[in-house]
Amino acid sequence: MTARIIDGKATAAALRQDVAKAVETLKADHGVTPGLAVVLVGEDPASAVYVRNKGKQTVEAGMNSYEHRLDAATSEEELLDLVRKLNADPAVNGILVQLPLPAQIDSAAVIATIDPAKDVDGFHVINAGRLATGLPALVPCTPVGCVILARQVHADLTGMEAIVVGRSNIVGKPVAQLLLNENCTVTIAHSRTRDLAGVCRRADLLIAAVGRPEMIRGNWIKPGATVIDVGINRVPKDDGKTRLVGDVAYDEALKVAGAITPVPGGVGPMTIACLLRNTVEAACRQNGIEPIL
Amino acid sequence: MTARIIDGKATAAALRQDVAKAVETLKADHGVTPGLAVVLVGEDPASAVYVRNKGKQTVEAGMNSYEHRLDAATSEEELLDLVRKLNADPAVNGILVQLPLPAQIDSAAVIATIDPAKDVDGFHVINAGRLATGLPALVPCTPVGCVILARQVHADLTGMEAIVVGRSNIVGKPVAQLLLNENCTVTIAHSRTRDLAGVCRRADLLIAAVGRPEMIRGNWIKPGATVIDVGINRVPKDDGKTRLVGDVAYDEALKVAGAITPVPGGVGPMTIACLLRNTVEAACRQNGIEPIL
Repeated sequence: MTARIIDGKATAAALRQDVAKAVETLKADHGVTPGLAVVLVGEDPASAVYVRNKGKQTVEAGMNSYEHRLDAATSEEELLDLVRKLNADPAVNGILVQLPLPAQIDSAAVIATIDPAKDVDGFHVINAGRLATGLPALVPCTPVGCVILARQVHADLTGMEAIVVGRSNIVGKPVAQLLLNENCTVTIAHSRTRDLAGVCRRADLLIAAVGRPEMIRGNWIKPGATVIDVGINRVPKDDGKTRLVGDVAYDEALKVAGAITPVPGGVGPMTIACLLRNTVEAACRQNGIEPIL
Repeated sequence: MTARIIDGKATAAALRQDVAKAVETLKADHGVTPGLAVVLVGEDPASAVYVRNKGKQTVEAGMNSYEHRLDAATSEEELLDLVRKLNADPAVNGILVQLPLPAQIDSAAVIATIDPAKDVDGFHVINAGRLATGLPALVPCTPVGCVILARQVHADLTGMEAIVVGRSNIVGKPVAQLLLNENCTVTIAHSRTRDLAGVCRRADLLIAAVGRPEMIRGNWIKPGATVIDVGINRVPKDDGKTRLVGDVAYDEALKVAGAITPVPGGVGPMTIACLLRNTVEAACRQNGIEPIL
């Protein structure tokens, strides 16, 4: 038996189409064109690629994209000033400051300064608190993408044993909250978990978000389980080049799981699509419109 | 074998002593006397008893207690005005509005109006978000009490399989966050969990917070497990009177568990003690003093 491969690229493309339709409706019915501002400080090549893709997909969805590229030597106060300007700009519905930031800037201070209503990354403490207490929130993009992918396989996640491996603020903890909202029985496992393999083997739905290449082996997976692999790790190949692998040993898992996301082409493409969705949601709320996505 | 009984009364008394000592230090070294304002709207008898006990224990710990009793017909705006006054009053370090509130008042609006720095119940979305993202927070009292009681049995909870039954904002979710901070492998189970008995049987540490009398039976408990029973349910006795029982079938559990909290005398007494602790913590932070508890 071979697992069904969950196509993140196709799912993300479909979500981007839904976003584009929602944007058309917003323009036609409300005269609102959502705008996303992305701020990049410095020249980290991976961040630059990511920012470029965000801008491109924002425009393709019919929204306005505002890119702000600041010198690597930018001071925290200069960046905070820009964030405050974007907070006050009615054309900007979403603000994303690309992480990581240079060492002279405190990321926490920057995130805390973003208007929670425009915090499309969902990292502000108010959005974390709203998610934790079951209120409408802007939710971090990768966790939302994980849940959408799981729902490609299971229309209803109620009662499933979900194991989340990893407890970061960016993925592990928010995805656990979302799965709880989906009525899963949720376990959060991490580096201090005893018998991690045994805990993983309980999972009907396994979310791997540890950032360690191929740590989760095939025999850690319950036969037929759905596996969502958040990891994107670059490892050396024999020829001196590198390749991307997930947190799950994919070839092994393929023989055991019922469904699995590949790396690349799984969770990765969902992240920007969910960012666009968050931007539309933010634009709706800021204009007193019932969210249409 | 009979389980060790975890003495909540004694643990709470010891914590209140620690609080009283901290208050003495605050007075002597900083000239600060922490103050707790408790607001009761209406005449619910259980709430009145609870408010009276809070006031009494606040004074016994050397702090100032400010009780505000409002008529059951008080409007939301009147209550919000009082909260705003307390927010602005430097003598008040902690504000607790006793729940439930009469139907004409939106509890969420009241909680959102309390200054997060004075939110000693830990219900404000900013405190929930701070807890969820690992920042210093005012944490709801009952969950903190649960963890303190568990640590009476285990100096270090790292690696324990903790099962939390119940997913309320007041107990289930915050206690799960705290146990994750203690490095437990944490599972949140609830009414939609399949095979709840089987899930409970995995627990080294079982937190019962469902509000259903004696729902968790002895054979749901792993031999030797530590059981923390948050439930306080009033049930009829044969003689027409009532008695208090927990969410766990205590007599059955006593024969299986390694340690267990009784009802009453377990988690219950911890709640006010933790409220006093939160008030001292709030007073420290508001005065720029490193928390001394």
